[in-house]
Amino acid sequence: MRPSGRAPDAMRAVTIERNVAMKAEGSCLIAFGNTKVLCTASVETSLPGWLRGKGQGWVTAEYGMLPRATGTRTRREATAGKQSGRTQEIQRLIGRSLRAVVDLTALGESQITLDCDVLEADGGTRTASITGAYIALADAVRWLEERKLTKGPVLKESVAAISCGIYRGAPVLDLDYLEDVEAETDANFVMTGSGKFVEIQGTAEGAPFDREELNALMNLAGKGIGELTELQKAALAA
Amino acid sequence: MRPSGRAPDAMRAVTIERNVAMKAEGSCLIAFGNTKVLCTASVETSLPGWLRGKGQGWVTAEYGMLPRATGTRTRREATAGKQSGRTQEIQRLIGRSLRAVVDLTALGESQITLDCDVLEADGGTRTASITGAYIALADAVRWLEERKLTKGPVLKESVAAISCGIYRGAPVLDLDYLEDVEAETDANFVMTGSGKFVEIQGTAEGAPFDREELNALMNLAGKGIGELTELQKAALAA
Amino acid sequence: MRPSGRAPDAMRAVTIERNVAMKAEGSCLIAFGNTKVLCTASVETSLPGWLRGKGQGWVTAEYGMLPRATGTRTRREATAGKQSGRTQEIQRLIGRSLRAVVDLTALGESQITLDCDVLEADGGTRTASITGAYIALADAVRWLEERKLTKGPVLKESVAAISCGIYRGAPVLDLDYLEDVEAETDANFVMTGSGKFVEIQGTAEGAPFDREELNALMNLAGKGIGELTELQKAALAA
Amino acid sequence: MRPSGRAPDAMRAVTIERNVAMKAEGSCLIAFGNTKVLCTASVETSLPGWLRGKGQGWVTAEYGMLPRATGTRTRREATAGKQSGRTQEIQRLIGRSLRAVVDLTALGESQITLDCDVLEADGGTRTASITGAYIALADAVRWLEERKLTKGPVLKESVAAISCGIYRGAPVLDLDYLEDVEAETDANFVMTGSGKFVEIQGTAEGAPFDREELNALMNLAGKGIGELTELQKAALAA
Amino acid sequence: MRPSGRAPDAMRAVTIERNVAMKAEGSCLIAFGNTKVLCTASVETSLPGWLRGKGQGWVTAEYGMLPRATGTRTRREATAGKQSGRTQEIQRLIGRSLRAVVDLTALGESQITLDCDVLEADGGTRTASITGAYIALADAVRWLEERKLTKGPVLKESVAAISCGIYRGAPVLDLDYLEDVEAETDANFVMTGSGKFVEIQGTAEGAPFDREELNALMNLAGKGIGELTELQKAALAA
Amino acid sequence: MRPSGRAPDAMRAVTIERNVAMKAEGSCLIAFGNTKVLCTASVETSLPGWLRGKGQGWVTAEYGMLPRATGTRTRREATAGKQSGRTQEIQRLIGRSLRAVVDLTALGESQITLDCDVLEADGGTRTASITGAYIALADAVRWLEERKLTKGPVLKESVAAISCGIYRGAPVLDLDYLEDVEAETDANFVMTGSGKFVEIQGTAEGAPFDREELNALMNLAGKGIGELTELQKAALAA
Repeated sequence: MRPSGRAPDAMRAVTIERNVAMKAEGSCLIAFGNTKVLCTASVETSLPGWLRGKGQGWVTAEYGMLPRATGTRTRREATAGKQSGRTQEIQRLIGRSLRAVVDLTALGESQITLDCDVLEADGGTRTASITGAYIALADAVRWLEERKLTKGPVLKESVAAISCGIYRGAPVLDLDYLEDVEAETDANFVMTGSGKFVEIQGTAEGAPFDREELNALMNLAGKGIGELTELQKAALAA
Repeated sequence: MRPSGRAPDAMRAVTIERNVAMKAEGSCLIAFGNTKVLCTASVETSLPGWLRGKGQGWVTAEYGMLPRATGTRTRREATAGKQSGRTQEIQRLIGRSLRAVVDLTALGESQITLDCDVLEADGGTRTASITGAYIALADAVRWLEERKLTKGPVLKESVAAISCGIYRGAPVLDLDYLEDVEAETDANFVMTGSGKFVEIQGTAEGAPFDREELNALMNLAGKGIGELTELQKAALAA
Repeated sequence: MRPSGRAPDAMRAVTIERNVAMKAEGSCLIAFGNTKVLCTASVETSLPGWLRGKGQGWVTAEYGMLPRATGTRTRREATAGKQSGRTQEIQRLIGRSLRAVVDLTALGESQITLDCDVLEADGGTRTASITGAYIALADAVRWLEERKLTKGPVLKESVAAISCGIYRGAPVLDLDYLEDVEAETDANFVMTGSGKFVEIQGTAEGAPFDREELNALMNLAGKGIGELTELQKAALAA
Repeated sequence: MRPSGRAPDAMRAVTIERNVAMKAEGSCLIAFGNTKVLCTASVETSLPGWLRGKGQGWVTAEYGMLPRATGTRTRREATAGKQSGRTQEIQRLIGRSLRAVVDLTALGESQITLDCDVLEADGGTRTASITGAYIALADAVRWLEERKLTKGPVLKESVAAISCGIYRGAPVLDLDYLEDVEAETDANFVMTGSGKFVEIQGTAEGAPFDREELNALMNLAGKGIGELTELQKAALAA
Repeated sequence: MRPSGRAPDAMRAVTIERNVAMKAEGSCLIAFGNTKVLCTASVETSLPGWLRGKGQGWVTAEYGMLPRATGTRTRREATAGKQSGRTQEIQRLIGRSLRAVVDLTALGESQITLDCDVLEADGGTRTASITGAYIALADAVRWLEERKLTKGPVLKESVAAISCGIYRGAPVLDLDYLEDVEAETDANFVMTGSGKFVEIQGTAEGAPFDREELNALMNLAGKGIGELTELQKAALAA
Repeated sequence: MRPSGRAPDAMRAVTIERNVAMKAEGSCLIAFGNTKVLCTASVETSLPGWLRGKGQGWVTAEYGMLPRATGTRTRREATAGKQSGRTQEIQRLIGRSLRAVVDLTALGESQITLDCDVLEADGGTRTASITGAYIALADAVRWLEERKLTKGPVLKESVAAISCGIYRGAPVLDLDYLEDVEAETDANFVMTGSGKFVEIQGTAEGAPFDREELNALMNLAGKGIGELTELQKAALAA
């Protein structure tokens, strides 16, 4: 039995609210249950020096968490003087995931920075960030297209992410914080709208896992990504 | 004529939404027009070493701005490796302003940290932060009172803050970003609910100002603080 | 009764010794009683990149304190690896105060950096820094004028600063360290030679203050700035 | 055809030289072809404060690369003032991988730090680090056992790591640098001696990959880990 | 011919003014010609943790230079965020030099920190710092002795320092900045009042030097240290 | 009697293995007994901005120590966030020592960086670094000469370094760690192949030393450098 009472293959309620940041070229507030992430896309049409003259653009991401997104206050990274290893790992993952569906040459000489800031954390902040950042990215690409600043279709397809895990012996979809703390195995899947893998990260937190368990997690992930893909389509069509 | 069409003594629409952060002991989302700040209060009932055994508590504040709160993306301070001088100046001001209305001995051996994170910036982020942080603080104090962790009335009275300035030769209340950039004089007033001064900071951005102009600004500030005090009362009574 | 026996409206003895730093384009050692600050002006006639080509110059300031300027040794900021919030607040204030009396276009494409280093601290280091930095600045401007590197009168008028406060219930001028620690209200005034305000910062350290008290402090400040202006004139005429 | 002429399922020559660091409680120099990593294990029998009194020990890892391990000189992280995101990601992975086979309670109140320093880099430095660190760890555990400082069998089983990838359309085992740069998909597998997964990380560098491709990579990884496990056994038996 | 017209074995005018820092337990302003260093000694009678309970004290030093001590402004180390290698090298030398004449057990459980801050730099700042720091140290020791906080004679003898060099082919004593820049060989000697060596550092800036040249420099240094020792005695007797 | 049983004027066994780093333009592994240092030379034929257009090149050095080169683990400087004062002192010394035998104009517009990384530390790491770095430098210079990138003979002669000290009252050559800890005086000599001094650094760790003792150390150093010079010649001829 999951703490939330969800079925093993049930995701939390996912909502996506677009255009929440007045000044950004793209933005959304995405919620996976009680996890809430504000994603903004910032376009720079003049590239930094090291990127110039290569006939292509760049997509990058930064991740942060408000100090009281968590149960007890977390120290502000700006005060600590550096981003933690965990933060860097996550923002590198977000950037890679988005670039996997972007045609950087078609993007032209623009850079898009996705900022994913966690307002409330209840497990799955990195998967919510990727899923929401895709929405902000898509709006920023539209912004560029309206200004005729692209050189062809920039987005090859959509991308979303979901976590799965082995919780009390059973494979479950979309871990919340209570499950995450206790799960024996924790895996994150970044997949395209057409169901291919962009990134897969599985970690045995307790006992090592076998191929059968991994297959079960992949099945769950496929289902979850399918649902997220529909939600992304609906949000972008609104 | 002000860019927003407001009368010289008219504030922007101010809204306060309480208890927006599920895990914090106190929180609110405060908006001064398009400026939006998320304020959370975090209570620690075990004090840091240097504060222990003095028979009193402490109230402190931190301030941050999401990278795309601004018109063009601002570099994340966690990436830069330090808080800017401006950020430190503002968070020191917020902390001082709140402590002015707190009886630290009555607070007992608890520390309350107020985090003010700007989601959207359109001028007046520091005054919105102080005004909203008071609400989060008041809720955190109630949380402590309900647990009988205080030693008497903690809050001596309310505190709020407002900016005024000389814009195109005329004294105006509650500058937005467009006015702030152009104002000859910019002043911030932190005042108690009973109308006394906690902090006053006036700066000539253009020509130096005289006592008459300062008096005009103080009159406007008194009016604005009166209105904010009523809004705070209403929010806390809700 | 003030610890020093001074009358409420009496400043400490102020002395200004010009040209104390052999290599600087302008310099002075200023003392407000036991507070001693070494102020130097450094001229760079080749501007940093971001300032170039704008047809104007820049004036900026840095502030520091020798470790044993204080009663117990203060940690060296170079060892700590960063400037404190207080230091940054002060040096930003010094820079703003000086720029208020400088015509940056007349300055031409030069940058002047004012370094204010406190050799002994006994209260009022920021006001002594501003008052002394003006002297160093004036000498640096003369240095530029002698080399015909300016494009017209650079200094619009003089600027000086003084602190006032409510000490044991009475408004007093030019707080020393003993008074500063105990004052209920502490205010710093930066004013021009013609008696206008450049910056005003008032803080309630104890009970909030009212408008009448603020008026009393402004009266004292006006008197003090008048005296400092005369001393500056005399120093620059010597 | 692979640049090295290897068959798709052929690893590079792997050698393990034990006890190369005179002063460490465990150490080895491991080579995967031209990739060479010096792994040392350092035992502290007095734990850092936050670990004390919990009746268990800890295993952690740090990773570094000599500046000229690479084709062009890489900036020294000690000079840059911080470890890169990549370095932190790798050292977190090494630590997690080793802890997966350690009984921290049986370890007793000791901490073992594994330092993996790359002397030459030719692809696969993280997998060589994990595989070699296990050897250094095993020797450090013996060192503790000889001194009767453990509370039972510390190592649950062995652990090793290998990379696989899709190179020019074909799944291949143990990518070297030339293959790594060009691979469409790059995956790292950390597995136990009994063939279970501790960690799996797969990334689409080019086109997203499907489940069939992932299965092919898992098959290769299983073969490679089998061979590494035999080499580890032989090294520890020597 | 030396730029200053001095004879090869002539030092610059050296002056020592004691008790210049009102709050320090010992202090002096020392000048070697145009080089001016403010030296303060700060006593802490409660030791930092790592020194406690060893039945002895500690003497340490820090070195700094005001930004405009030099011909063109030098960046403030507090702004740069760290002390340069040169600064660290010098402050380590000052600390070692003073500890060579201190009986740390007789000092008791006190720590004395010597701060040497260069107000004007014209060559020889490290030798002036050591020579002046000895004076501040001696006064701080007296301060401890008056309070009966020592356990016997703390100072074994005096210590001073001087530079020598090969300038245009000739050995000269006490290099000023113009000579320092051009010297083929530059050597610093730290010696006790009884004429023994505490530290010797010689560097070939141009051509390597031979033993004969080194002997000539040692002869000059002996003469210089003799004179400095007399000046130190006179200053402490005043 | 020395702990190692060596005669007072006997060095440890010194071995030099060239070309150990596959990718560097020059490299060697040098051992002074149990002290082992990996030295690599990296050539950049495009100079950093501040060096360009001066018609000359540059030679610089960096020094590091693997965490477990020492008896107990030393904190990694990349984790600490900065290089220690000791590290900076040593790398500055290595750079100066090598530049003393290099004709920077003949080098042309190339920069050579010597990285000296200590794999095992048993005293004398800085002298081994200098002696080994010369070998790596010589190979890097040959690499440039083969590509006709030099403008004449770059190396004026060879350079090597050795430590001496007063150990239990007697002058001894080439201190190992046990001697280094206990020595009353510790001196490092950097000398050319022709027997002249490039750098001499002597420090009294216990009692100050006199000129006679210094002469004895210089005699030992001369003998040691002679032997090292022969070993360097043999290594480069191999």
